[in-house]
Amino acid sequence: MLPSAPMSENLLGELAGVLPPEGLVTDPDVLDAHRRDQASWAEAGTPRVLVRPGSTREVQDVLRVASAHRVPVVPRGAGSGLAGGANAVEGCIVLSLTRMNRILELDRRGLFAVVQPGVINATLKAAAAEQGLWYAPDPASWEFSTIGGNLATNAGGLCCVKYGVTGDAAMGLEVVLADGSVVRTGGRTVKNVAGYDLTRLFVGSEGTLGIITEATLRLRPRPPPATTLVASFPTLVAAGAAVTEIMAHTRPSMLELMDRATVRAVEAYRPMGLDVDSAALLLARSDAGGDQGVTECSRMAAACEAAGATFVAQSADEAEGELLLGARRLAYPSLERQGATLLDDVGVPLSRIPELLAAVERIAEQRGVLIGTFGHAGDGNMHPTLVFDRNDPAAVARAQEAFDDILRAACELGGTITGEHGVGALKRPYLARQLGPETARLHGTLKAALDPQGLLNPGKML
Amino acid sequence: MLPSAPMSENLLGELAGVLPPEGLVTDPDVLDAHRRDQASWAEAGTPRVLVRPGSTREVQDVLRVASAHRVPVVPRGAGSGLAGGANAVEGCIVLSLTRMNRILELDRRGLFAVVQPGVINATLKAAAAEQGLWYAPDPASWEFSTIGGNLATNAGGLCCVKYGVTGDAAMGLEVVLADGSVVRTGGRTVKNVAGYDLTRLFVGSEGTLGIITEATLRLRPRPPPATTLVASFPTLVAAGAAVTEIMAHTRPSMLELMDRATVRAVEAYRPMGLDVDSAALLLARSDAGGDQGVTECSRMAAACEAAGATFVAQSADEAEGELLLGARRLAYPSLERQGATLLDDVGVPLSRIPELLAAVERIAEQRGVLIGTFGHAGDGNMHPTLVFDRNDPAAVARAQEAFDDILRAACELGGTITGEHGVGALKRPYLARQLGPETARLHGTLKAALDPQGLLNPGKML
Repeated sequence: MLPSAPMSENLLGELAGVLPPEGLVTDPDVLDAHRRDQASWAEAGTPRVLVRPGSTREVQDVLRVASAHRVPVVPRGAGSGLAGGANAVEGCIVLSLTRMNRILELDRRGLFAVVQPGVINATLKAAAAEQGLWYAPDPASWEFSTIGGNLATNAGGLCCVKYGVTGDAAMGLEVVLADGSVVRTGGRTVKNVAGYDLTRLFVGSEGTLGIITEATLRLRPRPPPATTLVASFPTLVAAGAAVTEIMAHTRPSMLELMDRATVRAVEAYRPMGLDVDSAALLLARSDAGGDQGVTECSRMAAACEAAGATFVAQSADEAEGELLLGARRLAYPSLERQGATLLDDVGVPLSRIPELLAAVERIAEQRGVLIGTFGHAGDGNMHPTLVFDRNDPAAVARAQEAFDDILRAACELGGTITGEHGVGALKRPYLARQLGPETARLHGTLKAALDPQGLLNPGKML
Repeated sequence: MLPSAPMSENLLGELAGVLPPEGLVTDPDVLDAHRRDQASWAEAGTPRVLVRPGSTREVQDVLRVASAHRVPVVPRGAGSGLAGGANAVEGCIVLSLTRMNRILELDRRGLFAVVQPGVINATLKAAAAEQGLWYAPDPASWEFSTIGGNLATNAGGLCCVKYGVTGDAAMGLEVVLADGSVVRTGGRTVKNVAGYDLTRLFVGSEGTLGIITEATLRLRPRPPPATTLVASFPTLVAAGAAVTEIMAHTRPSMLELMDRATVRAVEAYRPMGLDVDSAALLLARSDAGGDQGVTECSRMAAACEAAGATFVAQSADEAEGELLLGARRLAYPSLERQGATLLDDVGVPLSRIPELLAAVERIAEQRGVLIGTFGHAGDGNMHPTLVFDRNDPAAVARAQEAFDDILRAACELGGTITGEHGVGALKRPYLARQLGPETARLHGTLKAALDPQGLLNPGKML
């Protein structure tokens, strides 16, 4: 169970003293709308109050009040998280960063942007594009998730296979600590070894170590237009083998997999003529440019054929490529239309991808659960998604068991329980097993050093 | 002054109890050879003993003995560091990792290697190449520096501009903490958000938080052969402007600068027909492959010409490219032959490179010191190198003042006092100014949490 906070009568009054009227919300309907993120299976309490600070200073003031009253603070952005990392604990302060949504600076020649945490990923992408630049990180939620949330979870996406995760784009941060003090990490330089890498310590820490109030993010020149490849496979394992082979000699700018259940769900939702009979589709891209892009795609095509692909096609046509990308982006929304879903997010070493896919197939059969598997195959990061009838308790139990099985299988293959969604409340019970006792203890040591009262996002991750 | 350690009579006996005979050295000549790294200006004490553990277990035992006796431990690899990070403190245990030099695993399909910290960077590169793969990080010391040292400093190099620094290749670590416990961070997956990013916390921490005893490092497919470009500029600032322009639209696989003093030093040491009259040379490479490589080089050539380059030439000939690369790699050794040197390592945002180069020129003139400037221009990471007569106290004082001026100039341009060499003992007095009091305090909090007795590499960085 998530911890609950002690009541404190002066809390609201003191918060009102440090926030403007629009920054303090106690309306029960609004509080209810801010109780949880998109992880429907993770538990959530009811917040006592929602605060919406408009500045770093206001975040500091809120944390000082919270510390004085020993009331937990749960930070959140758009609430699009998939692990319950933004779920409220009983009686907490939910701290929404969505009002801090300004792009403070966009340095075209310095190749960086300085943004507040409530900026939407898509807004930053658009602002960068106006200057001929590119903000690479592209989680599935890029059109509505915030940079703050992306940083808190170290969000991944489709471009990671070549351009890295959100943390790879983070050059520096401003962070408010539990006691209300402000630290600045990193800076505006590409390389910087002056002190510990605190930027990376806060990125992915899910709001448990501090509240990110500003970020300096790396921008890049736009890569050349991509060539897209699609391949169908008779078995999931064959598709996995093609992925391992492709990664051994190519640098695709995208390498995504969708299994039959996923392709059928997409076709049922938005018919676009995808091959619903093969066991798996691979979508790959090269943005190497010029004839090198064609060379890379041909090499990937050959790898697919060698692994037993029954159909392979390439296209340099951008519209066609975007259409296929659109199909991939519909994978999860389409599966959600088939029933209740429990979305997993496991990662394995690149050489173990075929084994992971085989294990997921076996688990689906053994547990009698429909599993749609899709994801970032080129990173070894897959999203097996359990689809079931929420009103059938036996089906729910089988789904929960299959979920556990998948996490165990990934760990047994030298993998991880989460590649990009985070631990949150959803996978908290599984983290210690992956880390082992000494590493788990070190997590506790760091948490205690930075947040001795344990007020920042309690019950998440640790 | 560096702290000194209390004497302890039983220390040697207890160390002898946990180490094989070849693992414990008290010969004064050997101790003297292990007192310092290559940072001739940083102070160094005399160690009481040199230990050379052969296993993680022996490292644990040494740290347990050291903790019990409260004796500082200074870890070191090849001793090729440039910031005094491996310099002994008086009476300490110097812990050399050079005997732990095995490549434990090289997974060709998983694209990673598991290595002990004493493996030489070049050895890993060669082992990867045998499998058709590439270990990217290439600090200037790559032929003799160890992976452990590379990780401890988060070493950079020439390839970082496209492929990142050592930390970007670190997937997981085994680390022995001050109390002798062992933690494992990260893993074998490309993406992993299960818990805090402890890998990045230890990378670049210069041995102050723990001793890295094993690392899982990312390997890559070899990139296509590179096309090389060389350009001469009438002024340093023009060369800097070309760099900023190139980075705004291209992804070079190398972008290096050498100023006139550096080029002349290289020509004096190894004549190879470089243009000794222009103010600066840029060396750039594209490994985009095929006609894309040519396109990128042409675009870089156009940027150089627009910035006022007096000579621009491209070559797809690998031997010619390697020759130019060789010239760049000789920059520092050549300057060292001109007199005593004090090597700096500042970084600035990409848009401020021309200003940094102008500031260094001004400082050289104002202080009356010869400064040879070279470095990783595409990362904004430059090595202004002061050359002077060590026997002339006034010249030494002027060099020290110029060194301070350069650090101040970099910080005023929004930059950093160290891009890749580390803080060590050399720049310890400058770190707090860059970090500010709150961030410096957070460093202290983390250090105290992980090493409460302050025994790991005291007097370095913090």
